[in-house]
Amino acid sequence: MAGIITLLSDFGYKDHYVGVMKGVILSINPSVNIVDISHGVAPQNVIHGALLLNQAYAYFPPGTIHVAVVDPGVGTTRKPILICAENCYFVGPDNGIFGLIYPQLNKYTVYELTNKHYFLRPENSTFHGRDIFAPVAAHLSQGVSPAELGHEYRTFQSTSLPAPTMEQAILSGTIIYSDTFGNLVTNISSRYLPSPMGRGCLRVRAKGLAVSGICRNYEDVEKGNPLAIIGSFGLIELSVREGNASSLFGLREGDPVMVF
Amino acid sequence: MAGIITLLSDFGYKDHYVGVMKGVILSINPSVNIVDISHGVAPQNVIHGALLLNQAYAYFPPGTIHVAVVDPGVGTTRKPILICAENCYFVGPDNGIFGLIYPQLNKYTVYELTNKHYFLRPENSTFHGRDIFAPVAAHLSQGVSPAELGHEYRTFQSTSLPAPTMEQAILSGTIIYSDTFGNLVTNISSRYLPSPMGRGCLRVRAKGLAVSGICRNYEDVEKGNPLAIIGSFGLIELSVREGNASSLFGLREGDPVMVF
Amino acid sequence: MAGIITLLSDFGYKDHYVGVMKGVILSINPSVNIVDISHGVAPQNVIHGALLLNQAYAYFPPGTIHVAVVDPGVGTTRKPILICAENCYFVGPDNGIFGLIYPQLNKYTVYELTNKHYFLRPENSTFHGRDIFAPVAAHLSQGVSPAELGHEYRTFQSTSLPAPTMEQAILSGTIIYSDTFGNLVTNISSRYLPSPMGRGCLRVRAKGLAVSGICRNYEDVEKGNPLAIIGSFGLIELSVREGNASSLFGLREGDPVMVF
Repeated sequence: MAGIITLLSDFGYKDHYVGVMKGVILSINPSVNIVDISHGVAPQNVIHGALLLNQAYAYFPPGTIHVAVVDPGVGTTRKPILICAENCYFVGPDNGIFGLIYPQLNKYTVYELTNKHYFLRPENSTFHGRDIFAPVAAHLSQGVSPAELGHEYRTFQSTSLPAPTMEQAILSGTIIYSDTFGNLVTNISSRYLPSPMGRGCLRVRAKGLAVSGICRNYEDVEKGNPLAIIGSFGLIELSVREGNASSLFGLREGDPVMVF
Repeated sequence: MAGIITLLSDFGYKDHYVGVMKGVILSINPSVNIVDISHGVAPQNVIHGALLLNQAYAYFPPGTIHVAVVDPGVGTTRKPILICAENCYFVGPDNGIFGLIYPQLNKYTVYELTNKHYFLRPENSTFHGRDIFAPVAAHLSQGVSPAELGHEYRTFQSTSLPAPTMEQAILSGTIIYSDTFGNLVTNISSRYLPSPMGRGCLRVRAKGLAVSGICRNYEDVEKGNPLAIIGSFGLIELSVREGNASSLFGLREGDPVMVF
Repeated sequence: MAGIITLLSDFGYKDHYVGVMKGVILSINPSVNIVDISHGVAPQNVIHGALLLNQAYAYFPPGTIHVAVVDPGVGTTRKPILICAENCYFVGPDNGIFGLIYPQLNKYTVYELTNKHYFLRPENSTFHGRDIFAPVAAHLSQGVSPAELGHEYRTFQSTSLPAPTMEQAILSGTIIYSDTFGNLVTNISSRYLPSPMGRGCLRVRAKGLAVSGICRNYEDVEKGNPLAIIGSFGLIELSVREGNASSLFGLREGDPVMVF
């Protein structure tokens, strides 16, 4: 165990929900280090949560426990789960929020969390972050074994980003996320592209935004100009150097992007 | 002492005010664990701050010190206080922010904070979070006794939520808080209702929203449908399953709610 | 070393960027205490970042390492730097974000960060917060010497606030920051004013807002009335007691302020 629990949710920064989860964790394990990944996921947007978690988890020390609560189905039949991977753990609802992570793990076992002894409030909860996920993560951080927390579970949900399509030498994708800076993340991963050497002559287009070449650095274009770059997501991002691509070009999630 | 200080304020997430309070605390007690409950309380809205603190404090370990700074009267004659309860401490202004907590405490003593030796800046402060509450909480966490920090104080302010009224078998309440998900919290506590068995035939109405029965789980209704549920506040909440009740029904704080 | 690393950025609270920086730091030094100053700096607004950092750093314990990432020029030729002062350290881009701090330091040495051995990802990064500043700060917190991290650098950028001007006994300044509460911070420091005794007869004017005297406390005016006060920035602030000066008087950054 690394002694670290991370939290990711769509609870926002207005309410007390995140604070309550931290209180529950520290009541069980006072010495664990709790780190926020983000609580600004769009409400009930599981794909956003999956995207952020997928980009963040690998930067934490081995043994870290990642708790993710974007949970539109709380209180329904979707299962609470624990994933034990070689280097880390994931705790949260089985609703696809871990779907982008499974393909990246070498080896893992999924458990359904069934042992109510480790829940804070075993019945009728509408707040599993507080009543199930926080206390289970805290007990796990203290060395309770996964097999004690539940039983193996094989029918977990996977999701993946919608893949871009290729037709007549045009790669068609979508904007799937717009970050704080108005950078537009697409679902087009660098693995769909030619080698870096051949990317200079590609064209990328989305509404009024049209650029030539995939840049390597922001300085490849002048201040205020648009560019396409492989961003920290490993995906093509559309940006404006020192500007906001989303507002300048009126682009938003769901808008189509073409590479050719 | 638990070695934990929680912070609740209306300082928001744009400015440096919360960071400064943490710096002041760690300068006095480098080993204390500081946990944010929320800094997104609506500016100068003492009742919101009271509501959130009241719902969060009990989830922290015994000995936790809770600092709450929603303080429209900073610099006026309202007193800075410390509440010593059996299991925890509260530090902040005497303006009603602790008003919902007193009735829940078995036994407590309130102190006016008068010993300027433990203040960071004793005079003319417009930022008591930094100059009084943070340093006093830090000294308290190091074992300075309450009697050393001030003297007993009996005329502290209580506030409570406006109680719902009952007339002709209609229970009338109000929406007092709208959370990040558009869930609408009312001032109608479950103690005004019949036993869970008898709640299925109650009707709840607020503007265009009308539902039958108090649900136990979100799955009791279809996706997109409204429901009334006893939420994590212990109060009736109006929600839409996987939706936003506030925006769908145009409901906001202050709007009336009827149960009959 | 204090064992504390603070973070200041314009990364906001929606994305995972801050969480990733924390993961990188904890992977190198698991026992360091990471404290957020703010991540709500307006996107790419270096002067705001400089202002907040300048007001916050001195409240932290000696030995604290302050990481600031407001970095519109990431990926360009601006240098990553480390400032070693008597009591603390600063890590970030050399773009003026530390410009307000230099004049306050007795003695300091600036290093350009050149030793890629201590970077997470040495080449082609568009996220220096993760790839350079976080890992360098973490290694520094573990005792790696500044001279090992880079070499001395003398041509660093200073910025300072635009100074107010004086003409015909009128001091003319500007609103440079509007905080969460609608308090309007000007660039007029108390050192331009007469001694506190003589401030009662000054007049301060900005658009429709006109007040007489620099107040010492908010209680010097009635609730809802405007006042000028020396705020926690050490600068003249225009406020409304228990109200929002920005929205009430339609004042915003860049608007002129006169004192006479």
